[in-house]
Amino acid sequence: MNNKKNIFIFSKNLTEGDASYINKLGGKGANLAEMCNLGIPVPPGITISSDVCGHFLKHNSLPKNLESTLIEYIKKLETEIGSIFGDANNPLLFSVRSGARQSMPGMMETILNIGLSLKTIPGLINKTGNSRFVYDSYRRLIMMYADVVLEKPENLDNNGIRLKLDSILSEQKKRYGKFKDSDLSTAELIEICNLYKEEIDSSLDKKFPDDPFEQLWGAIRAVFLSWNGERAKKYREIESIPDYWGTAVNIQCMVFGNMGESSATGVAFTRNPANGDINLYGEWLPNAQGEDVVSGIRTPFPINNFSKNNLTINSPTLEESFPKTYKNLVKIKNLLEVHYKDMQDIEFTIQNKELWMLQTRKAKRTGAASIKIAIDMLNQNLITQKDVICRVSTAHLEEIMHPYFDPSVENLLSPIALGLPAGPGCSIGKAVFTPEDAEIWHKNGEDVILIREETSPEDIHGMHVSRGIITTRGGMTSHAALVARGWGKSCVVGCNKVEIKGNFAMVGEKPINKGDWISINGSTGKIYNQKIDLIESSLNENDYFLKLLRVLKKNQLMEVRANADNKNDAILAKDLGAKGIGLCRTEHMFFSPERITEIRKMIIFRNNTEIRTGALMNLLPYQKNDFYSILKSMSPYPVTIRLLDPPLHEFLPREEKHVKSLSVQMGLSIEDVESAVLSLHENNPMLGHRGCRLGISYPEITEMQATAILEASANLMLENVPVFPEIMIPLVGSAQEFENQNKIIQKCAKAVNNKHKIKLKYKVGAMIELPRACIIADQIAKQADFLSFGTNDLTQTTYGFSRDDVSGLLNDYMKKSILDKDPFISIDMEGVGQLIKIAVKKAKTVNSDIKIGICGEHGGDPKSIEYFYKLGIDYVSCSPYRVPISILTTSKFT
Amino acid sequence: MNNKKNIFIFSKNLTEGDASYINKLGGKGANLAEMCNLGIPVPPGITISSDVCGHFLKHNSLPKNLESTLIEYIKKLETEIGSIFGDANNPLLFSVRSGARQSMPGMMETILNIGLSLKTIPGLINKTGNSRFVYDSYRRLIMMYADVVLEKPENLDNNGIRLKLDSILSEQKKRYGKFKDSDLSTAELIEICNLYKEEIDSSLDKKFPDDPFEQLWGAIRAVFLSWNGERAKKYREIESIPDYWGTAVNIQCMVFGNMGESSATGVAFTRNPANGDINLYGEWLPNAQGEDVVSGIRTPFPINNFSKNNLTINSPTLEESFPKTYKNLVKIKNLLEVHYKDMQDIEFTIQNKELWMLQTRKAKRTGAASIKIAIDMLNQNLITQKDVICRVSTAHLEEIMHPYFDPSVENLLSPIALGLPAGPGCSIGKAVFTPEDAEIWHKNGEDVILIREETSPEDIHGMHVSRGIITTRGGMTSHAALVARGWGKSCVVGCNKVEIKGNFAMVGEKPINKGDWISINGSTGKIYNQKIDLIESSLNENDYFLKLLRVLKKNQLMEVRANADNKNDAILAKDLGAKGIGLCRTEHMFFSPERITEIRKMIIFRNNTEIRTGALMNLLPYQKNDFYSILKSMSPYPVTIRLLDPPLHEFLPREEKHVKSLSVQMGLSIEDVESAVLSLHENNPMLGHRGCRLGISYPEITEMQATAILEASANLMLENVPVFPEIMIPLVGSAQEFENQNKIIQKCAKAVNNKHKIKLKYKVGAMIELPRACIIADQIAKQADFLSFGTNDLTQTTYGFSRDDVSGLLNDYMKKSILDKDPFISIDMEGVGQLIKIAVKKAKTVNSDIKIGICGEHGGDPKSIEYFYKLGIDYVSCSPYRVPISILTTSKFT
Repeated sequence: MNNKKNIFIFSKNLTEGDASYINKLGGKGANLAEMCNLGIPVPPGITISSDVCGHFLKHNSLPKNLESTLIEYIKKLETEIGSIFGDANNPLLFSVRSGARQSMPGMMETILNIGLSLKTIPGLINKTGNSRFVYDSYRRLIMMYADVVLEKPENLDNNGIRLKLDSILSEQKKRYGKFKDSDLSTAELIEICNLYKEEIDSSLDKKFPDDPFEQLWGAIRAVFLSWNGERAKKYREIESIPDYWGTAVNIQCMVFGNMGESSATGVAFTRNPANGDINLYGEWLPNAQGEDVVSGIRTPFPINNFSKNNLTINSPTLEESFPKTYKNLVKIKNLLEVHYKDMQDIEFTIQNKELWMLQTRKAKRTGAASIKIAIDMLNQNLITQKDVICRVSTAHLEEIMHPYFDPSVENLLSPIALGLPAGPGCSIGKAVFTPEDAEIWHKNGEDVILIREETSPEDIHGMHVSRGIITTRGGMTSHAALVARGWGKSCVVGCNKVEIKGNFAMVGEKPINKGDWISINGSTGKIYNQKIDLIESSLNENDYFLKLLRVLKKNQLMEVRANADNKNDAILAKDLGAKGIGLCRTEHMFFSPERITEIRKMIIFRNNTEIRTGALMNLLPYQKNDFYSILKSMSPYPVTIRLLDPPLHEFLPREEKHVKSLSVQMGLSIEDVESAVLSLHENNPMLGHRGCRLGISYPEITEMQATAILEASANLMLENVPVFPEIMIPLVGSAQEFENQNKIIQKCAKAVNNKHKIKLKYKVGAMIELPRACIIADQIAKQADFLSFGTNDLTQTTYGFSRDDVSGLLNDYMKKSILDKDPFISIDMEGVGQLIKIAVKKAKTVNSDIKIGICGEHGGDPKSIEYFYKLGIDYVSCSPYRVPISILTTSKFT
Repeated sequence: MNNKKNIFIFSKNLTEGDASYINKLGGKGANLAEMCNLGIPVPPGITISSDVCGHFLKHNSLPKNLESTLIEYIKKLETEIGSIFGDANNPLLFSVRSGARQSMPGMMETILNIGLSLKTIPGLINKTGNSRFVYDSYRRLIMMYADVVLEKPENLDNNGIRLKLDSILSEQKKRYGKFKDSDLSTAELIEICNLYKEEIDSSLDKKFPDDPFEQLWGAIRAVFLSWNGERAKKYREIESIPDYWGTAVNIQCMVFGNMGESSATGVAFTRNPANGDINLYGEWLPNAQGEDVVSGIRTPFPINNFSKNNLTINSPTLEESFPKTYKNLVKIKNLLEVHYKDMQDIEFTIQNKELWMLQTRKAKRTGAASIKIAIDMLNQNLITQKDVICRVSTAHLEEIMHPYFDPSVENLLSPIALGLPAGPGCSIGKAVFTPEDAEIWHKNGEDVILIREETSPEDIHGMHVSRGIITTRGGMTSHAALVARGWGKSCVVGCNKVEIKGNFAMVGEKPINKGDWISINGSTGKIYNQKIDLIESSLNENDYFLKLLRVLKKNQLMEVRANADNKNDAILAKDLGAKGIGLCRTEHMFFSPERITEIRKMIIFRNNTEIRTGALMNLLPYQKNDFYSILKSMSPYPVTIRLLDPPLHEFLPREEKHVKSLSVQMGLSIEDVESAVLSLHENNPMLGHRGCRLGISYPEITEMQATAILEASANLMLENVPVFPEIMIPLVGSAQEFENQNKIIQKCAKAVNNKHKIKLKYKVGAMIELPRACIIADQIAKQADFLSFGTNDLTQTTYGFSRDDVSGLLNDYMKKSILDKDPFISIDMEGVGQLIKIAVKKAKTVNSDIKIGICGEHGGDPKSIEYFYKLGIDYVSCSPYRVPISILTTSKFT
């Protein structure tokens, strides 16, 4: 390519660019050239390279010789099209449009009908026999030109002149007694054009140019200038588009869809963008211009039967009205899809039955469509498995896994409050403020949304029956967030605008009463005090997801496991592609009524070894059953079970009535129970008596849990079910702690092996969630079979951020650019990540066989997963609903 | 030295060893040889090398030829002394004593009078004319021999035969109607000796050997065996003495101080071990044996007037009774001190006016004596400055800086409870349970001990007026511990046996009532429910401490600063040698009544920028005064001032009545105040909204404090007082946080400079107390003038240990050998230390000028300080009372 060349023609007979010229020609220009090369009918035109944009903005003038070259090129167009720009008898009109390397909707400047002047108007009237059409086009030209080219630079973004001209149009329509623009007569349009010109003269102290070339130069300049408009700059900042790219300018011969009943215009997708159906999907209008289809003034018709909906079931289709042209369009659809190997978003105009393509570009689509199209195109041999993987984004997958609000509905509503998007998907239900109410209302057949300040393991049952959960405090890895994501429930946390006042809440001045409808968008953090209809998850509707999963798994470069602590989640996770459980928490298992009594007995009498051991022995059969069903469900894959982790006070009741009933159960006075609860109070429970510290203080806990795991495994082994239990010791900070707990586990394993005369395959490993554990990872790795990073807690201690306390601060930090992202969502590579790196290196140096995983929330975050992969981590584990997303991420690695 | 030689003689004419042979001869043997070489009269003897001990214990037999060589050596002794071992007419008696490389009191086996037998007794009676003395010696020989040599190995440590023989002695005395041993007649002693032998025969099924050589071999074997006795093994474990050292055996000719009125025995220190006075200090008894002086049966006499006390003011001195021998003893004292260059602990016997030295060794001494002696010896040119530094231990310094209980009194008492020794020194006072009571009782002239579950900044005033503080919870760096050490108050924390019940406490079944006398030993953690008299600190009594300080400072290899937040502490710290303040906390400054109201107003109305700023502006003049006086007191040294650090809730009242009065002050309802308090509640405040996070949320706080610091500095600069303020940003976790706060400070500095037309010298630095800050220290160091590690908090986050919550766990961990020391006392070199190492390296790589300090509690811990020095840390900062200890530590570096 001649690098200095900055004007390119596209036409039937001569096209100087193609799709690969996108950096110079912009998306629009390159695709127009590409279509010409493919022999697709495109109104011919010229693209001025985006390189010129930089020159223009720097020097505030077009490069030397550009005008003269452009005039040469216009002559070529004139020859091809058979009419002449500025000619009185046979005038050629142009559209002038911007077009950058990447689509920038909303910042694009477009001026149509360039070339209409007092001199050319009669010629065009002669040619079309339609003076009304010509003056309507002239009115539109004056309007667009004033707005885009003549407007004072300081008003460019606040529509000063446009509003004035709009109000002239409204006033005149009122005066003439006309309702729609299309009702205006030629004479009325002529008067309006004159009023427009007078207003421009007085408001802007400029004249609307009557010379076609002056119009053209002005339009080109305006397009270049628009690159540095405030709107465009802001958009680039958000989308990280570099300033130096610049925009190209497309000067294209006008074709008209409004030249009578044999003309039409339309937009279409080459497949259905909502569900991926293979047929052309779009809208059209006869005798209309493009803007009429998209503006909503007239209801557009369906392009074919596949495009019909309830409103348009009886409308004429393009297929019926223009059968030949429609066939042509389908041919072009197929040509474009085979050529681009992707679904296209196209614009077309039919002028006197002749089809002209005005645009083609990659089409936006829903998650479900994205997956179906990718799989269909794979089956059509259009694309490869790697292409499929590239085409599907994590957002697409998230979309199909959860119910969603229809964006066209949601976008029109104002949320009453905004929190952190802690559990993706949307949900609706009636507001309740206690887990007890949630259970009662749920039993009565109501969908409920549970609103709490924060949640604790005590609330589990109420959370389980709720459709969605809102907390006013807490961050992305708070208890509520973790539990909700684990269950695939939508959840918004840290919603501090909501103030709970017992059985109702206030959002500023507005109350939320018990029973009020609440809608949650857990993917954006928005909360609404009304009922929004849900679009259900399409996961179970088609088998494209499973087909996709097979492709992904074939290309997966890193093992993905799930965090699951019951049979159902284990089965779900396996179905969603998990190759094992990376974190089975055992604490939730203790909250059913018959168990919680025993664990509370153990805690209250914890200094009495006999009662403590007795209570634990009563729990053993329950735990054994738990592990039996989880291990069996996940067979033949490994299951990592974490020993008891949370501080014991979490198992004790806090509310008065529960304290009372506990005192009765234990045969103690209320004061004794209260004092037992109080004695477990900690100032910073996160840094307190929890994790392996519990197992060291009360070795019987470790003994009971290890025995339950190993006995369950032994039973399954004897039933010929292959099982691989991995026992994980939490919150290890020193080699000595690991040694202490490992000894107990090995003793239990020996006992189980001897009892059943078997040799169990099991592993013992450490959960690495303290900075110290990272620093001395080699010492732990010498004794451990595996390490698993608990990145939530590791982030808490490394940053010194309590996830329950600093969610508000994190938002503040992001607003003030102190943080660029929430480190509880995406791993902090500079800090926490470096500790993991140190640990992995140290651990592998002393134990090359050691298996290293991630079981924090970051195991479901694509950016984090990629980072972990580069560090040499063997697997990630995430909540079941994130498993496909993690698999997708790991299959994208190269 | 012939390495195979294992028998060494020491005598007037022939001595084969000297002090340098200590590894072979043990301390006792080597010093006896050394004294012989110096011409000092020592009863001649033989030392069997400690090398033999290993051989004996391995083979359960003495090496080949050892007996025959020993017999040769005994012949040499016989020649020298003029009497013969085992001879009927002129018998020689031996003592046999152990003696390891290092003194091991309590495990030493000693047998006197070896060689007395039915054959030699008449000869000795003839020689001494004193049959009672001979049979008394015989009785003692049988007793000691039975106990040490004949006893069954399994009973060696529980005194089986000794107790039986003791009861024979008691029974016989009863039967004879005699009260004291010395009242027994020859005939009675003979009967007792016979009863002893019968008992040995029946109990041990062994005969007491009547052959002198058999006695000797048995004694030697027993001494070697004692090396592996349970007592000795335990002692070695505690003192880290290797097993392979073994003990030597000393066989020495007996001399007798009880051969009549011209004989005597005594023990002495070459200087006063309590206060370091230069004169000989000791006790003696005429006509007595060594054990009579130390056993307490007779009250010994003072050796000279310097040794007299209230009880012995009229007793005869050795100086008066044996003037010539005394002069001789003084000569020997001087000789020994010049030779050993240290105070000695000596034993001597006078047999028929002839002086014999039985022992010399380095003497134990108090802190005060240690310092005085070291300085005196430096002035005598006996030792160098480096020797002075080696001679003084941190324990010595601690001793002189705080009041102490007399150990001889305290050792006889049982503590009622034991906690962590959080503030060294001892104190007594009456128990109170609230800070209010502490203040009231103090005003009434009572000394009080404040007993609390834990303390908070609200309690400060009550703590300040208390003599000592006890908390039932918390660890070595809890609020109570930090405050107490800062003020040099004795303090015991984590004393969980004490249960507070409102206005009294229970220790098990025993109550502590308000007003009960309580004594605290803050150096050991012991608590007593009675009044123990205090020995006041000797810091201000003599100027030896200051002389020592001068020596230390000359040899100091690392800068030492103090943590101080008021003028008095700053002055104290400077007097104690601090070269600046390394940590001036600003939060305590806000607790006086007129200030707390403003800070509370700021907190309660924190979301109203105007009220917040107003309240802060009202605090500005107070803060400026605070900083003015501290900077002035510490001039010309730098003062590092930390910006506000604790979570805001710490400034709000918790008790109902305070909430009430606050609501009145603020013109708010009680509910509003309660809700304001509640809204600041955090689950883990340690990881919450504190440190620089406050200054980022409320920039006016930083602005106010920086302005106050810089305005105070400007005023002092204009008064020609050199000041070097260093502003420290706490809890920095990212470069962005530092940048945010630094910008505010630099803006304030510019304003102050412009206002006063000056150019202040000031620094801005970061407190490094989060693992993340260590990992990204290079990023912070690029912008910071200094870094200071807050090792308390860094230990908390690295280990995941909340210092307030895990004190009990840490004790448990130490008991179970999971931790070998409390990481809040001595830096965890494997974990926290490695993070510091990483940070120092990264910081210095990007900023070689950066100054790096430690301002956590570890800055006062000798082992930690040495570690920091090796890491390249520039200075440590500790509480004023630890400054001399840290200086001592840094002057010991080589």
